[in-house]
Amino acid sequence: MTDDYPNVQPIPANNPELRSWVESADEHGTDFPIQNLPFGVFNRTGDHADKPAVGVAIGDMILDLAKCWNADLFKNTPAQQANLFAHHSCNSLAALGRARVREIRERVSWLLRSDTPTLRDDASLRERCLVPMSEATLETPFEIGDYTDFYASANHAANVGRMFRPDGDPLLPNYKHLPVGYHGRASSIVVSGTPIRRPHGQLKPDDAPPTFGPCRLLDHELEIGCFIASGNERGTRIDVNDAPGHVFGIVLVNDWSARDVQKWEYVPLGPFNAKNFGTTISPWVVTLDALAPYRRPLPARPAGDPAPLPYLSPDPKSEAEAMGLEIQLEVFLESAQMRERKFDPVRISHSSGMDLYWTFAQMIAHHTSTGCNLRPGDLLASGTVSGVNEDERGCMLELTWRGQNPVQLPTGEERKFLADGDRLVIKGHCCKEGAVRIGFGECSGMVTPAE
Amino acid sequence: MTDDYPNVQPIPANNPELRSWVESADEHGTDFPIQNLPFGVFNRTGDHADKPAVGVAIGDMILDLAKCWNADLFKNTPAQQANLFAHHSCNSLAALGRARVREIRERVSWLLRSDTPTLRDDASLRERCLVPMSEATLETPFEIGDYTDFYASANHAANVGRMFRPDGDPLLPNYKHLPVGYHGRASSIVVSGTPIRRPHGQLKPDDAPPTFGPCRLLDHELEIGCFIASGNERGTRIDVNDAPGHVFGIVLVNDWSARDVQKWEYVPLGPFNAKNFGTTISPWVVTLDALAPYRRPLPARPAGDPAPLPYLSPDPKSEAEAMGLEIQLEVFLESAQMRERKFDPVRISHSSGMDLYWTFAQMIAHHTSTGCNLRPGDLLASGTVSGVNEDERGCMLELTWRGQNPVQLPTGEERKFLADGDRLVIKGHCCKEGAVRIGFGECSGMVTPAE
Repeated sequence: MTDDYPNVQPIPANNPELRSWVESADEHGTDFPIQNLPFGVFNRTGDHADKPAVGVAIGDMILDLAKCWNADLFKNTPAQQANLFAHHSCNSLAALGRARVREIRERVSWLLRSDTPTLRDDASLRERCLVPMSEATLETPFEIGDYTDFYASANHAANVGRMFRPDGDPLLPNYKHLPVGYHGRASSIVVSGTPIRRPHGQLKPDDAPPTFGPCRLLDHELEIGCFIASGNERGTRIDVNDAPGHVFGIVLVNDWSARDVQKWEYVPLGPFNAKNFGTTISPWVVTLDALAPYRRPLPARPAGDPAPLPYLSPDPKSEAEAMGLEIQLEVFLESAQMRERKFDPVRISHSSGMDLYWTFAQMIAHHTSTGCNLRPGDLLASGTVSGVNEDERGCMLELTWRGQNPVQLPTGEERKFLADGDRLVIKGHCCKEGAVRIGFGECSGMVTPAE
Repeated sequence: MTDDYPNVQPIPANNPELRSWVESADEHGTDFPIQNLPFGVFNRTGDHADKPAVGVAIGDMILDLAKCWNADLFKNTPAQQANLFAHHSCNSLAALGRARVREIRERVSWLLRSDTPTLRDDASLRERCLVPMSEATLETPFEIGDYTDFYASANHAANVGRMFRPDGDPLLPNYKHLPVGYHGRASSIVVSGTPIRRPHGQLKPDDAPPTFGPCRLLDHELEIGCFIASGNERGTRIDVNDAPGHVFGIVLVNDWSARDVQKWEYVPLGPFNAKNFGTTISPWVVTLDALAPYRRPLPARPAGDPAPLPYLSPDPKSEAEAMGLEIQLEVFLESAQMRERKFDPVRISHSSGMDLYWTFAQMIAHHTSTGCNLRPGDLLASGTVSGVNEDERGCMLELTWRGQNPVQLPTGEERKFLADGDRLVIKGHCCKEGAVRIGFGECSGMVTPAE
């Protein structure tokens, strides 16, 4: 067996020359070429319905890793001893740590590449292990122990500051010294496609006591999220230089927000009910290794900004410094009327993973600087990612400037905030000359009416 | 069997006339008489070391419910079908919902009462099922999915307001309209007795840039916490009148806080690193049923305060209205020097569960008013419980008024905030004429030096 399943596959999994025998993985514009291989959790449906399992997206197919394991295809990898894939989450896989997950991903790459006959030439085995995405539903990839949401885009924070504190500095004094964040609600994180019911909440008119009713200012927030692989013991810290070794991968996030609820409740302890009714994530977790061609340091800080304190400063030329992510992010909106009249969803905004002031390495170092323990499957989200331009604002609040400049839809409708029946879709991909396109799939959700 | 294990035990588990054959349960001053029967998770140590299991505290013993189940002692109860007690948490038990847990507790009461021979007269069975507390270690009683911390004591909130906003209203405008809360960190919740390492963090002098170093203003927060039994589906709400039916029970909580870290980080998104390095809870979860003699409505709101909105207003005479908890709370401090010189811990503060402005029923109704889903084992904490008097302040910040009036220790030492080696102990009990004393055990932790 060892000859068939070498310990080290000679071609790295993100080599741009690789091709897969899965034809759809080589199609132009696919999110999931063989260089990507993101992990997720799926349920096979229909005639072959089965228990949830961990899989890898390849073109328009899913490689069922639990079935591959049953066929002995993970011999001589860190997954050899137990079927970590026959689970309803990637938590056990992630707990192996990034280096071991990388070895497993290399094996998956080898199995899927055009010159490996193991699955390619065995129709029966292939049939068992390869599932059309159209015959599967996707789950949240992790059981999320804790969810933390940051505020890492200075463009977003400054826009919010300009709106709510027009006479002050757009950024608060702590902003450039530490990655501001808060603990979010893990129970209501859902996978792309799950409807989001408009929440109720306390709404406070300027000149009258609060009332209780359906949120009127429902918003999306365009974010990216980082899943933790191996964590740290309580009472210890993760050094910023070691932080990338604790990252499992990246997803798209929509941190739905009730702006009217938020405005009334958030002083002094921060957002609570405004954010806890639902957070949507994309189902496929793209590894840092797949993103290697698209990682570089964030742009230098503007002149006059403070240098980060040493515990937030990675070594020059380190992997931790190269944690700026060149992910192109887009937000699309489709109203009920657009759907009915067959209009395509309209792009209302776009920005980039490079539009952040702090990296996930810095967020991890800061988060654990107190000795707070991260666990495999914890989710850290970036906060709304906004660029500098008006069409690069990551939420309706900014995009319409509190409703002053409504978004125009092709039906003639306009939106200050989200309406019932609106479907919001976040997409993300990486793409540049000389590298293979890496996609994130979709992070979508439709707003359903309040109870 | 049905004759031996009747469906309904005729004497309710909190009847003050009940006596147990476990002698220590009848001793004056015990926290755990047969009327209490709190649930927890323990590991038997020593010669009979075993896997973690769910148990019930009785006097200075633990009834091992997993072993009782193995002996068929839960026939004709909701726990009949599967051994929900052979787990390292009470989550599966709690998921049954409060009414079914009550039936199980009634069975435990029957097994332990003086006139039931089943265990009393069977030495071998008793030996298997009854574990001395001295031969066990205790675990956190739940796998906590999400932890929410409220701010429900108006005395505390007003004191903080007076210190930090001396020229404004002590309470912010939203305080009397909604139970202010924020999401906390679940991963770092630990059981009583676990050391708490002094965290690092960013400290901001008034006149200089921030530095990174060990927290200097380490504080405790005296709180009570509420564990959820059955939860709610995402997108649905728990009516305030139904809220008590979702409560598993109550514990003591110490929400350790780094005040210097908090001051610099908390605007605008609330406390984050200041609170995420450790939260201590007491190991025994006291059910609402055990607390029945000690539950009544909170005192009427002061004249001029707004009435709660309808979704926060339980029906008159309902169980949900009687969610004020007459728990007497005490905080003790023991310094390293006191320990060395054999001084007893000194009581530095005391307050009552009645010193809250909002009940857990209102907190649950508010938390889920957006459709946020609670899950079995979620923890809601009250926030610091302070009374109106100076010796009833639930944290060092208030007790010493930001260090202006240090606490005097019997060794001649004084404390503005907590020092390394300090052991902080929270105790709680209910006690009044005509009812049996119900205790909560201890919630303790010692501060160890920064890394």
